[in-house]
Amino acid sequence: MAHFDTQYQRLEASYSDSPPGEEDLLVHVPEGSKSPWHHIENLDLFFSRISSSHVYNLHQKNGFTCMLIGEIFELMQFIFVVAFTTFLVSCVDYDILFANKMVNHSEHSSELVKVTLPDAFLPPSVCSARIQQNGFLISILVIAGVFWVHRLIKFIYNICCYWEIHSFYINALKIPMSNLPYYTWQEVQARIVQIQKEHQICIHKKELTELDIYHRILRFKNYMVAMVNKSLLPIRFHLPGLGDTIFYTRGLKYNFELIFFWGPGSLFENEWSLKAEYKRGSNRLELADKLSARILWIGIANFILCPLILIWQILYAFFSYTEILKREPGSLGARCWSLYGRCYLRHFNELDHELHSRLSKGYKPASKYMNCFISPLLTIVAKNVAFFAGSILAVLIALTIYDEDVLAVEHVLTTVTLLGVGVTVCRSFIPDQHLVFCPEQLLRVILAHIHYMPDHWQANAHRVHPGGAAEPHRYPLDPHLLPAAQVPGDHRLLPELHRGGGGRGRHLLLRTDGRAPAWAPGGRARSPPPALGGPARGWSRGPG
Amino acid sequence: MAHFDTQYQRLEASYSDSPPGEEDLLVHVPEGSKSPWHHIENLDLFFSRISSSHVYNLHQKNGFTCMLIGEIFELMQFIFVVAFTTFLVSCVDYDILFANKMVNHSEHSSELVKVTLPDAFLPPSVCSARIQQNGFLISILVIAGVFWVHRLIKFIYNICCYWEIHSFYINALKIPMSNLPYYTWQEVQARIVQIQKEHQICIHKKELTELDIYHRILRFKNYMVAMVNKSLLPIRFHLPGLGDTIFYTRGLKYNFELIFFWGPGSLFENEWSLKAEYKRGSNRLELADKLSARILWIGIANFILCPLILIWQILYAFFSYTEILKREPGSLGARCWSLYGRCYLRHFNELDHELHSRLSKGYKPASKYMNCFISPLLTIVAKNVAFFAGSILAVLIALTIYDEDVLAVEHVLTTVTLLGVGVTVCRSFIPDQHLVFCPEQLLRVILAHIHYMPDHWQANAHRVHPGGAAEPHRYPLDPHLLPAAQVPGDHRLLPELHRGGGGRGRHLLLRTDGRAPAWAPGGRARSPPPALGGPARGWSRGPG
Amino acid sequence: MAHFDTQYQRLEASYSDSPPGEEDLLVHVPEGSKSPWHHIENLDLFFSRISSSHVYNLHQKNGFTCMLIGEIFELMQFIFVVAFTTFLVSCVDYDILFANKMVNHSEHSSELVKVTLPDAFLPPSVCSARIQQNGFLISILVIAGVFWVHRLIKFIYNICCYWEIHSFYINALKIPMSNLPYYTWQEVQARIVQIQKEHQICIHKKELTELDIYHRILRFKNYMVAMVNKSLLPIRFHLPGLGDTIFYTRGLKYNFELIFFWGPGSLFENEWSLKAEYKRGSNRLELADKLSARILWIGIANFILCPLILIWQILYAFFSYTEILKREPGSLGARCWSLYGRCYLRHFNELDHELHSRLSKGYKPASKYMNCFISPLLTIVAKNVAFFAGSILAVLIALTIYDEDVLAVEHVLTTVTLLGVGVTVCRSFIPDQHLVFCPEQLLRVILAHIHYMPDHWQANAHRVHPGGAAEPHRYPLDPHLLPAAQVPGDHRLLPELHRGGGGRGRHLLLRTDGRAPAWAPGGRARSPPPALGGPARGWSRGPG
Repeated sequence: MAHFDTQYQRLEASYSDSPPGEEDLLVHVPEGSKSPWHHIENLDLFFSRISSSHVYNLHQKNGFTCMLIGEIFELMQFIFVVAFTTFLVSCVDYDILFANKMVNHSEHSSELVKVTLPDAFLPPSVCSARIQQNGFLISILVIAGVFWVHRLIKFIYNICCYWEIHSFYINALKIPMSNLPYYTWQEVQARIVQIQKEHQICIHKKELTELDIYHRILRFKNYMVAMVNKSLLPIRFHLPGLGDTIFYTRGLKYNFELIFFWGPGSLFENEWSLKAEYKRGSNRLELADKLSARILWIGIANFILCPLILIWQILYAFFSYTEILKREPGSLGARCWSLYGRCYLRHFNELDHELHSRLSKGYKPASKYMNCFISPLLTIVAKNVAFFAGSILAVLIALTIYDEDVLAVEHVLTTVTLLGVGVTVCRSFIPDQHLVFCPEQLLRVILAHIHYMPDHWQANAHRVHPGGAAEPHRYPLDPHLLPAAQVPGDHRLLPELHRGGGGRGRHLLLRTDGRAPAWAPGGRARSPPPALGGPARGWSRGPG
Repeated sequence: MAHFDTQYQRLEASYSDSPPGEEDLLVHVPEGSKSPWHHIENLDLFFSRISSSHVYNLHQKNGFTCMLIGEIFELMQFIFVVAFTTFLVSCVDYDILFANKMVNHSEHSSELVKVTLPDAFLPPSVCSARIQQNGFLISILVIAGVFWVHRLIKFIYNICCYWEIHSFYINALKIPMSNLPYYTWQEVQARIVQIQKEHQICIHKKELTELDIYHRILRFKNYMVAMVNKSLLPIRFHLPGLGDTIFYTRGLKYNFELIFFWGPGSLFENEWSLKAEYKRGSNRLELADKLSARILWIGIANFILCPLILIWQILYAFFSYTEILKREPGSLGARCWSLYGRCYLRHFNELDHELHSRLSKGYKPASKYMNCFISPLLTIVAKNVAFFAGSILAVLIALTIYDEDVLAVEHVLTTVTLLGVGVTVCRSFIPDQHLVFCPEQLLRVILAHIHYMPDHWQANAHRVHPGGAAEPHRYPLDPHLLPAAQVPGDHRLLPELHRGGGGRGRHLLLRTDGRAPAWAPGGRARSPPPALGGPARGWSRGPG
Repeated sequence: MAHFDTQYQRLEASYSDSPPGEEDLLVHVPEGSKSPWHHIENLDLFFSRISSSHVYNLHQKNGFTCMLIGEIFELMQFIFVVAFTTFLVSCVDYDILFANKMVNHSEHSSELVKVTLPDAFLPPSVCSARIQQNGFLISILVIAGVFWVHRLIKFIYNICCYWEIHSFYINALKIPMSNLPYYTWQEVQARIVQIQKEHQICIHKKELTELDIYHRILRFKNYMVAMVNKSLLPIRFHLPGLGDTIFYTRGLKYNFELIFFWGPGSLFENEWSLKAEYKRGSNRLELADKLSARILWIGIANFILCPLILIWQILYAFFSYTEILKREPGSLGARCWSLYGRCYLRHFNELDHELHSRLSKGYKPASKYMNCFISPLLTIVAKNVAFFAGSILAVLIALTIYDEDVLAVEHVLTTVTLLGVGVTVCRSFIPDQHLVFCPEQLLRVILAHIHYMPDHWQANAHRVHPGGAAEPHRYPLDPHLLPAAQVPGDHRLLPELHRGGGGRGRHLLLRTDGRAPAWAPGGRARSPPPALGGPARGWSRGPG
């Protein structure tokens, strides 16, 4: 789209999407290769199917068994949530639970009657009748069923696919599955490179470097990082009262990926190359129209499915978090790296586990840093709300301790619980009395791990203007942590990208050439594994 | 008073309280100054009223809005505590809450009756009748009302006063209120110094240094520090069973300040200069008599108001801490710096936030250090009490889990709660099994922050004699932390003071001259802001 | 026993068990020594009785009062557990507690009846009748009574014994009991050495070194360490499904000590020398037969007492841990150093407090290190079990908060509690989301404290094979932490022992000569007190 003015310049359409000799990397094994392996035919077969990103995924998921069990559990969770909700909606007599109605035990009329949990369950016949009468419920159940069958099919396909990766690990890489969790990815990768050297598993290149493998695994991720860095995605909005805000949820990310990478009619042919028509500059406008139409349809589909997705998310969040909220209400105030932050802070050619390790190391100081900037106004309000709520709570607790019959009064327990949660939430906004305020030092530690920072932060760690770069947000359960890029165009990364100059390479962000990766297999003991390059070094240079 | 023999020597009475040219510092703006500001008349007005300590307070309270809301909340808290207590005393029918009496719902006689919270509240007419019959309650309410009105008037006066400081920030210092929390005090101060240079806002001095500003803000605090260091205040008592103890509460501190600094008939005329009569040596005895009489009257007033203050403190502590005690009973054992410790460890010319930052940094190691010295005898007793209480608790919990009807038995919940709190309190006296005992290292870390230590500690960190310097105290909610000065006359600070020699300066503790402060506005990024001087350097030298 | 082939070589039988001149170390004071002490006769008396290990124990137990009170509490705990269990079994009417039976308050028939706790207690007469009818209970009570009387006698003997040590501290070492907790053992030891120099309290040696004292205190411990290092004790088993496991409980250790050191017919005459017959090689087989017979008898005794010990352990664990489990179920997953680990990691000649300090310093990194290796399979299962249990819990909690009458439904509270504990236990198996994975660094920190490591760990910290050296175990309440020695014969320690060569010394493990200990009394401030030697230095050299 012409109106996006970026530093990434378009190349001639005649250029191949991949550099010469990389087109089918890791895909074909030269026929008739005289490999000394046992299952040579079998290997031939699976080398044509496996992709390095599957190999990486299986490693990250700690082997085949863990992946299998994990996916089975996911299928079960879905059934459980649907079935349990249906049961709660249709098969429970809440009047008995809430003691609004006596239980009819005619034979025990004279004795003390204890209500048991099964007393509150309706008999199966009543229950199924109630379900059948509920048209809305039935339609939801049908949709859920269809969705589940779809996931089941995907699951079976995945299993078949990973089963071959599993064989690849065992037969080609000689790594038994049970030991896989104890191998680092660097070790696995070194074995793949070694195998290529010995047996020429991919024909177009003589030598397979770590960078080739990284490129394959991270093709889509690199595109996303580039699009976020260049602000090509519509994820930043200016809301009237709130200033610039970022809206980049898991759902939006899923939709982006659907549109660009793997949905029907997406831009990519397969995991590593663009469709032929997108490489020609001539039919650009036509393709843009097609894309725009597809985005419209996906939008409509999203809108229609919206209520179902909402119900699912509410149910899932309720089942997942209620218990935690009750046990440690303080976790409401816990922070995590936002999806946008993850994307913004990611280097090109950085694998998931490398990013995760980097962010984990930065998490503790970043979290402390953000806690230095709790709004003083919020603190005052929180303190006083906590005092008022705490006072009432104190009286109720004291009365309860004195005589537990107070608990039997309607809604006393409700009040105590809600006030307790409220007070705890308030307290999470009150900074620790003995907090040491040293934002400069913290910021230096954070930067050692996260690597990016707007320039004007440097001397001003203690003075972050609201609405400025490090504005502290605090959303329940998934807050933005260091939403650093609220200052567009000011990233330390970008000058480097500019300076390196685009203009000669096409996918300039994703490609480099001739640079030997910094680590060798022997260096694997270093922790963490170094990323394939610092942000400031010439990743933006094109292949020319 | 002649019998206090200190190192601070009295000067000739003819000396001015302030050094020449500082008398009205920051008070008058030269008339007709050709300032380029917009609201020059207005500035004239508020420069005659503002004082640097108000400027500092507003900065520490994070701006006008926060201060305003904080004070409004304080007024509301008082009303709430009084009203809620009155409500609990007069308007609740506890017999219904404790299920000693059936609720009379004549219309529901046949059905199950659920008691709701409003059932337990008496109707307003009964309630007000009960209040009117209770003479004691009414008299307390009247006193509380008078007190509240007094606070309201003070609040309105304060608001007016701070509103001008607010204008000073915005118009003179050019700092918008919303950004104030993100400015350090050093930055604010640098602007004040800059303004003086440009516009001569105080006429008596050409240049305004940081030290001048510090002196103004800290005049009273410095006096208090000096009096504590010299043991001039009667805060150390020898109790028969307990040895030397420190009694220095917030109430006592309030009374001291009332007597010396701002009460009716106090020694000071205003915030920065002594009354004229106190500067003459001739009428010393007479003034001492007057002071002694005033102290007597204040003592009598304290005695009369004692029951009210006590009731208020109990109520306030109950409302504030009950909820925390229930949620984290371990916080009972938490430590905090005692008021005495804060005073003893304070440097001369150290602002509140500087002291706070220093103590906060020392808090964690100091807390660990104190935990190294839990009395072994106490540990054994606590372990065994925890075992006995825990056993009974275990049985009650097991019974409750097996059948929750046990909870309905009178006082089972009370027992469970109290035993639970008891066990947790006991456990806070049992040191962690994996505690690493290295007092020497901890003490070194603490000293790096708190700066003072009796000499004989040096080689004996592991061997603190009970009753000696670092005797571990553990009071609920406000324990002494490192009450270092229980060894009088042995402080590292004092020799320095002696050596520097008094004898030529009058307010020798508070004044120095000719020393440029160590930091410049450019150095504001350093954290923490350096205090105006270490304890060992010549603060005791007089102006001569 | 001939079939154990160790590196420790037997010496000629003619050798004395102790080196020349050490036989009666610390036992006799030369008669008629012209000591300037006040109670010289008295000193004569107690020097003939005290042993250095008693002196050490009293120091470790923080003085006489603490020891006395601790032992009295232990006696009381036993009575309490027995009496309270008897009371629960015989004197409580659970039907009333569980509201299965109405309380008969005939006089209150018309009013609301509240059940109180005493209502559920049977009257003393009924209670004692029920006890008398219960033959099993009575027999247990009798056995418990006999055992308690036995402990009481031992207690009285101990008190008499330690009373003299107490006098030794006060009169000879001039350390008042109340200050003992603030003295390090090095200081106490230095005083003992000093006293010997001045007054020749033991006649056979001119100079008494720290090593002599360590040898006395640690004679038995050193034997145990040697036997564990050489795998002479049958504590390692190969279980079909689980691979090599270590079984070394407190009970087994007690039995070993009973057999070897202090039981009737044990190998040692007293605390420091073997029986004469064990020093002669000629009757080896005969002695082995005798020992074997004794072990059989002890085994039979163990088997007979087994049910009683089991009941006791269950009761004690229930009373001790139920309350913690309820309050912090996460502590179920806490780790501690296993008994085997303590023995394996102990240096020769390392006192209890030195070992404890070393292990405490290593605990935190070791605990983190083990957490790096939570099985991924277990994590997935735990996550999903937590989700399913948490869902049901969420619904129950929501219902309870909405209307507390739900709690009155039979077993709802039970379900909530059990599900809550279950979820918390599951969560303890889910690693922290922000966990930083750096096993190499952690391992280096651990080794700085624990000193031993199988060689093949060095480059492979991140790849511990299941069943290999650092296999992560996780047993409730007493798990193995770093059960390092599952790789027999691979310990870094052992080569050193071999290299130093046995063959000339007899108790080569326990002896060295001529090496001045590394620390002097003046160095006591260093923390932690250095052990008497690193594992790699010549502790294995014999006296020759």
